[in-house]
This record gives sequence, structure tokens and C-alpha cells, in this order.
Amino acid sequence: MSKVLVYAAMSLDGYIAGPDVSHDHPMGVDGARLHEWMFGEHVDPADRVITKAVSADTGAVVLGRRTFDVGLAHWEDVPYPAPSFVVTHETRPDLPQKSGTFAFVPGVEAAVERAKAVAGDRTVTVMGADIQRQALAAGLVDEVLISLVPVLLGAGAKLFDGLPPMAFTGPVTHVRLGTA
Amino acid sequence: MSKVLVYAAMSLDGYIAGPDVSHDHPMGVDGARLHEWMFGEHVDPADRVITKAVSADTGAVVLGRRTFDVGLAHWEDVPYPAPSFVVTHETRPDLPQKSGTFAFVPGVEAAVERAKAVAGDRTVTVMGADIQRQALAAGLVDEVLISLVPVLLGAGAKLFDGLPPMAFTGPVTHVRLGTA
Repeated sequence: MSKVLVYAAMSLDGYIAGPDVSHDHPMGVDGARLHEWMFGEHVDPADRVITKAVSADTGAVVLGRRTFDVGLAHWEDVPYPAPSFVVTHETRPDLPQKSGTFAFVPGVEAAVERAKAVAGDRTVTVMGADIQRQALAAGLVDEVLISLVPVLLGAGAKLFDGLPPMAFTGPVTHVRLGTA
Repeated sequence: MSKVLVYAAMSLDGYIAGPDVSHDHPMGVDGARLHEWMFGEHVDPADRVITKAVSADTGAVVLGRRTFDVGLAHWEDVPYPAPSFVVTHETRPDLPQKSGTFAFVPGVEAAVERAKAVAGDRTVTVMGADIQRQALAAGLVDEVLISLVPVLLGAGAKLFDGLPPMAFTGPVTHVRLGTA
């Protein structure tokens, strides 16, 4: 049975994207700072293990309509090499890409159900702040993986805002940081 | 030279206290959930190492007036065994306790300066969301230690809200949690 994962890179102040998300700024203004550690020459091998594992484990993707809209031009493909389900009430034909096909599904519950049906033993990875919050609120999520990035963004989209009090299973994590 | 530390237990959604802080609820309503891992029979030894080290390293404390007001009845002492400087514009005589003396200082910069003068090689630990934010905004902080607790509080006082964009030195931290 596949598990449902919410994975996000999050700033210390809780943002997983900057403000004013657009085609020019798919992560929002300044939001690319949340992903800098993933790219370039100086990627920490310990970080690479995490992002590679998420990619390898992902058997299907559920993503929000806005994440699809601004992401597609940048990925030029599905976000992970797997069938990908876009939550939207607009009816659209499937959209095949190099490494998988986008299907368009009305509602997060239906999208997670369809994703589970094709993921097999692998993970259903949920992407996009809005849909991630909806999936958490609906109790559809089995695991949350946060890559906590040592920056403050000050504005943007917060993953955990507007959710009711919840408890997760797992340890307290101690994060020691210096000021620049 | 002593370093200045902001230490806080923080929920996943960024709260370091619940709402409606009062004498009955010194951590705010539900805020005690942020500290449960520190107390009781089932404390993780790895967690104890962290909290013991903060206590042992602390050579002076800077705290906010509200933290002092609601904390004193619970500590029945200074918060750590060290001289403690309360930021307030009210003039008050020093208030000796079992393990140190409270002094009352107008302004966070003056309080940090006085704390550094007595901390020697040990750490100046800054307590209380408001004063921690002021110290961060004023560039007075050398190190931030966050104990990230796997709960959502949904309301209360946030450590990092209202601060300008900042970057800290230190690694990305990957936190994997289950849903209950």
C-alpha cells in the first residue's frame, strides 16, 4: 500500500514559497532561496540523499493547479518521473510528457485515490502549499518531510497556516544556526 | 567573549507560545505542548543533552518583561542559575533569587551589554518571543537554537514573524514525521 507524503522545503518562518508566484517567479519572489541548496556545485551529499530518495520513491504525484501552471514551463516534464494528477475542476484531456502523464482530477481526495491506484508500493507525493494543506486537513497524509532551510523569507505562502492543532509522530529536532 | 543565544522550543507552524499567555497559562493556552518533551519520565537522552547544555552554558539571561511576569511564579527563581536582566522601562530595584539576581534594564541593547559584561566566556541566553525578535532585528544575536516540536498550535506568538528577510549559517535540516 502506498503512503502519501507531503514534502516541502520550508524557511524558518514557515514559508514554502515567496510572494507573488508567477511564471517568471515560479517559487515566488525570493522563493528560489528555498531551493538553492538542491542545485549547483556545492550540494551537500547528505542533502542529495534526501532529494534523490524522494524522487526514487515517488510512484505518483498529486499537485495543485497553480503549481502545475507555473511549474510546467520549468520542468518541461512531469515534476517527478511518475503519473501526475493535477487537482482542478476544469475538465481537460490527459497531457503526456517525457516521463509521465498529467491527468486532471476534480478534488484532492479523488486525486489521491487515483494516485494511490497507480503508485503500487511507492509513494504518492503531494506538491503545492494549497493542496498540501488540503490533504493534511482531510487526513489523507501519512508522512511529512520538511527540509528546513536556514533563511527567513518574511512573506509568501505558509505550509501550516490555517490548519487546526495537530500532533505528528517523530522526534524533536534541534537546529543550531549562526547569524551571518 | 560571550556569545548571544536565542533559544526556543517552536512548533512546526512557528509558535513558541500559545495564545492568551497569563499566570495560569505561562506558555499560553496549549503552549505547554511545546515543553512536554523536556519533562516527565520519558525524556529522550538526546534531548536532555541539549537542554542541559543550554543551562550549563548560560552565564547570563536577558528576558522580556512579560516572560518575567508570568515566569517568576513558576520558576520561583531566575530561569537559569545566572544573573538575569529584565527589559523594562519601569525602574525597579534588583530582585535577588536563590540562583541569581534579576536586574531591570531599559532596552534590549543595554540589557545584552550588561549581560555580556557578567557572562564571561559563557553564553547570554535571550528568552521571550518579543525580546528575541527585538534582539534578532537589532543584530545582537550570534546563535539561534530551535527545538522544533512536531505539533501544530494554530495560534499564539511566533518567533520569526515580522522580521525582515535574513539568512543564517548552518545546514538544511530534514525532518521526517508521521501523522498520528
